[in-house]
Amino acid sequence: MKGSETKERLLRIGLDQTSVHGLAGVTLGQLASASGLSKSGLFAHFRSKEQLQIDLLDVMAQLGDRVIVEPAMCTAEGLPRLIAVVDLWFGWSGRAGLSGGCPVAGAMFELDDIDSDVRDHAAKIEARWREQLSMFVLEAKFLGHLTDDTDVDQFVWELYGIYLSHHVSSRFLRDGDAGARAKTAFDALVRRHQPPCVSAQG
Amino acid sequence: MKGSETKERLLRIGLDQTSVHGLAGVTLGQLASASGLSKSGLFAHFRSKEQLQIDLLDVMAQLGDRVIVEPAMCTAEGLPRLIAVVDLWFGWSGRAGLSGGCPVAGAMFELDDIDSDVRDHAAKIEARWREQLSMFVLEAKFLGHLTDDTDVDQFVWELYGIYLSHHVSSRFLRDGDAGARAKTAFDALVRRHQPPCVSAQG
Repeated sequence: MKGSETKERLLRIGLDQTSVHGLAGVTLGQLASASGLSKSGLFAHFRSKEQLQIDLLDVMAQLGDRVIVEPAMCTAEGLPRLIAVVDLWFGWSGRAGLSGGCPVAGAMFELDDIDSDVRDHAAKIEARWREQLSMFVLEAKFLGHLTDDTDVDQFVWELYGIYLSHHVSSRFLRDGDAGARAKTAFDALVRRHQPPCVSAQG
Repeated sequence: MKGSETKERLLRIGLDQTSVHGLAGVTLGQLASASGLSKSGLFAHFRSKEQLQIDLLDVMAQLGDRVIVEPAMCTAEGLPRLIAVVDLWFGWSGRAGLSGGCPVAGAMFELDDIDSDVRDHAAKIEARWREQLSMFVLEAKFLGHLTDDTDVDQFVWELYGIYLSHHVSSRFLRDGDAGARAKTAFDALVRRHQPPCVSAQG
């Protein structure tokens, strides 16, 4: 097996551990024992625990792109595509084959009060994702699917709240109604920003 | 110093550490060094790391009652009290003197995929808090401040989303607009559930 393939396999194992135990729960020692490599063998791939965590965040972002953004691009631009993104985003980690929840949602609470390179990297990935979401909302606004006075940042901020509440209610509270509750909340958010004529059809 | 006073002081130090590093970040060893006690001295107060974490969750719930619920009871029943609770809840950990964010918000992401007595205890505390929030919403509904068809569970679910988005944007993204964004979102949630005549005055 090539070095790059080994690294890819290690990151996939590590990402699965992160989704369950958080970034702090993945150590080089644990990853070595889970992958059957020696700890010194791992050092050929990751210089430090911090580098491992940064690589894990990157591989998570790539996975998110593949299972959320790419399939949504097949849907018509504007509101239909925004709705598709939300459908694909909520609960994405399970559909991507991870054993636990969204690693970056966990990281936002795990790293919020600790300054580090890992935190900075997580913040960059998070900012990029919010920019992508903003683009989808902006597209819907430009196409007249949302009103001209829609505050795109506020829309994304509230959408984020629905995502986090869905994450907590489905994964921590294990509430079977999480999906229906999220749909009601998202529908209300969209309705609040739809032009009157579109709203009357809805 | 009496045993109970020592334990109280230890829990206060531990709660502060939890707010920054999460429950997993507080170990008996770290607590011993932060408090100047020996590790064996600590065992007189906490049988195990799990018992320490459970006690930390309890002391957090008591603190939340004191800084969120008790002061809100001075405000008139119904919507004014609900608004007061939300004002006191958002960002409460800083006002309670903790160095980091809300320990239970962190715990909901930290413990979501791990079954344990600590998780069960956190879920109990979380359920109790949601019941309290539901009571405030129900009171506002009974007094006619919110419409008869207000779905109380859905209202609390969405309110929780606003709380979590505020937590992430204020603590992880360090966004100065977090408070204003939360207010806009909460106002819209209330407006959606207000009877027409109240809404027209608002």
